[in-house]
Amino acid sequence: MKVIVDCLGGDNSPAAEVEGALLALRENKELRVILVGDETGIRKILEKRKVKSRRIQVVHAPEVVTGNDKPTDAIRLKKDSSMIRAIRMLREDDSIDALVSNGATGVLVAAATLRIGRIEGVRRPVFCPIVPNMYGGVVGVCDSGANIEVTPEMLQQFAVMGSRYMEAFRGIREPRVGLLNVGVEEEKGDDLRREAYRLLEHTPGIRFVGNMEAREFLSGEYDLVVCDGFSGNVLCKCAEGTALEVLKRLKRDINSRKKYQLGGLLMKKMFAEEKEFMNYLNYGGCVLLGTEKVIVKGHGSSDRVATRVSISQACRMLRGGMNEKIRESLKEIS
Amino acid sequence: MKVIVDCLGGDNSPAAEVEGALLALRENKELRVILVGDETGIRKILEKRKVKSRRIQVVHAPEVVTGNDKPTDAIRLKKDSSMIRAIRMLREDDSIDALVSNGATGVLVAAATLRIGRIEGVRRPVFCPIVPNMYGGVVGVCDSGANIEVTPEMLQQFAVMGSRYMEAFRGIREPRVGLLNVGVEEEKGDDLRREAYRLLEHTPGIRFVGNMEAREFLSGEYDLVVCDGFSGNVLCKCAEGTALEVLKRLKRDINSRKKYQLGGLLMKKMFAEEKEFMNYLNYGGCVLLGTEKVIVKGHGSSDRVATRVSISQACRMLRGGMNEKIRESLKEIS
Repeated sequence: MKVIVDCLGGDNSPAAEVEGALLALRENKELRVILVGDETGIRKILEKRKVKSRRIQVVHAPEVVTGNDKPTDAIRLKKDSSMIRAIRMLREDDSIDALVSNGATGVLVAAATLRIGRIEGVRRPVFCPIVPNMYGGVVGVCDSGANIEVTPEMLQQFAVMGSRYMEAFRGIREPRVGLLNVGVEEEKGDDLRREAYRLLEHTPGIRFVGNMEAREFLSGEYDLVVCDGFSGNVLCKCAEGTALEVLKRLKRDINSRKKYQLGGLLMKKMFAEEKEFMNYLNYGGCVLLGTEKVIVKGHGSSDRVATRVSISQACRMLRGGMNEKIRESLKEIS
Repeated sequence: MKVIVDCLGGDNSPAAEVEGALLALRENKELRVILVGDETGIRKILEKRKVKSRRIQVVHAPEVVTGNDKPTDAIRLKKDSSMIRAIRMLREDDSIDALVSNGATGVLVAAATLRIGRIEGVRRPVFCPIVPNMYGGVVGVCDSGANIEVTPEMLQQFAVMGSRYMEAFRGIREPRVGLLNVGVEEEKGDDLRREAYRLLEHTPGIRFVGNMEAREFLSGEYDLVVCDGFSGNVLCKCAEGTALEVLKRLKRDINSRKKYQLGGLLMKKMFAEEKEFMNYLNYGGCVLLGTEKVIVKGHGSSDRVATRVSISQACRMLRGGMNEKIRESLKEIS
C-alpha cells in the first residue's frame, strides 16, 4: 500500500504532512509513503525525529500551488510544484495507490479530474466531505463543489459512489441516502430533482430513503446526502458556520454575567468536548470519488493529527477495495 | 390601509389570525382588516373578546387549502377556500392593499404569482424570509424557494427588491448585499454567478459587497443574500436546523451529568432567552416581493403574536411605499 503525500500548500506544511505520515506509518503496518515537497525541509524533520525507514521515500518538488493559482495555469506552468508532481507520479507509477494533499482544492480537483483516469463508467468524479451529525455519527455529502451543474444520471452515480465510500471508510452498512430537495414529497423541486428521485428509487445497491430538507441534515436520519455541487457546498458551509456562530454566541452570553460565568465554569469540560466534537479536522479529509486512484484532500489548516487521519482514511478505502466495488456497482446500473 | 387576513390553513387557525389581527389593529391606528374563513368560528372569537369594530369585516369562505393540495388544482377547484377567495378579493378590490396568510406556501406563491399583477418591470416575484443573525440583527434571503431556476437578470432584480424591502421593513440604510457562491473570489461559481456578479457590481441603488460563502450567512456582515430559490431554501433551512440541533445537543449534554445540570440551572434564563432569540416566529413572515400588492406568508405554526408581527410587517411595507420604490429602482436598471 503506497500513498504519496503532498508536503506543501497547507497552513502547517511541511511539518503537518511529514509528522502526520510518521503517525500513519505507525498505525498502518502495510503502508509506505512518498513525501513530495521541499526535500531539505522534509529531511530536517525526519532527522529531528531520528527516523530512518525504508518505508519512506522523499521526492524534491519545491514549488507551491496556492489558492490564488488558476487551476489551468497551475497544471500547465507549475510542473515542479509538489501537487502537480504528485499527480503526475500517481498517474505514471502503477505501484502508487493514493494521494493525500492539504493544498489548494480547486487545483487538486481539476488536476486529478484531468490527469487521473476515471473508474470505468464514471461520468464525473465527485467531492465528498464527511460532517459530524449531532448524534455522534457522521453524514457524507456528494457533491460538495466539484460539479456545479449535474444531471439526474450523475446524481445517481453520486449515490452509488458515496454509498460504497461510507461503507469502506466508516463501516456503515446500507447507508441511508437522501436527495437534497426543497421538500420531502416525491414531486418537489425542479425536473432535475424529480428525475433523480425516480432513478434513485430504482437503483440497486443503494438504500434510498427519499428527499431530504436541509433542516434534517444533522438529524442523524441520513448517512449520505446526494446533491449538485453548488447546494452541497452551501449545505456543508452553512452547517459548519451556523454551529460555530451559535457556540460563539453562547460564549458571549456566558461572559456577559457573573452568574452565567459560574455556570460556564461548571460546564467548561462539556464545552471543550463540544468544540472538539464539532472540529471537522477530526473527521478526515474530503475524498474525490470516481478516479482510478484514491485521492484525499485534507483541510488547509490540518495539523499532524488531521493529516494522520487523512492518510489512514486512504488506507481504509484501499483495504476495503472501494474502487473495485464502485466499479461493480456502476456496472449494475448501466 | 386595508389588509385581508386568511383565517384558515395555519396550525392555530382561526384563533391565531383573528386574535393576531386584533393585536395588530391596536398597534396600527390606520389599519382595517378583512377576516376570511369560517364565519362562525371567526365571529365566536370576536364575541368572546367582546369586539365590535367598524375596522373589521368578516367574509365567509370555509374551505381549507392544505399542503397536500397541488397548487394548480387548488386554484382551479378550491375557489371557496379562504386563501383562493382572499387572493381573488385582493386582485379585484382596489381598496385592499395587502394579504397575510399562514396557509400552504406552494399554493399561495403560485396563486399570487398567477393572479396578482406584477410591479412594472418585474420578471418574477421572489420569496424573501428574514433570519436572525447571531449578533442581534437580521439577514434577508432572496430567493428562498419561489424560483428554482433563475437568470443573472433575475438575481439582479432580487437584489433591488430585497434592498427596498430591508429598508422599508427593518429600516436598514443601504443594506449590504452578498451573492451566495462557493467562494468569495469574483470568478467563483458557474456562469450564472459570474454573470450576476458583473451585473450586481454595476447596479445603481444597491450596495453590493461581493460573493458570500454560506459559512458567513449569520456573521452579521450581510443584510441581504441573493441566490437561486433552491440554494436559498437550503441555506435558510440548514441554518435553522443546525442552530436547533446544536441547542438540543447541548441540552442532552447538560442532562448527562449532575455538575452540568447545576451549571445549566444557573444559565436557565440565558438558554430560555437564546431559544426565544432563535425563534423565527418573532421575525415576521416571509414576504413575496414583486407583486403589485403586498403579500406576507406567516409560518404555519404562527400563534397570535407571530400573526400580529406579520400583519404589522405588511403595514410597515405599505407605510414605507415599498412597492413604489421597487418600481422606481427597477426603472433605473432597465
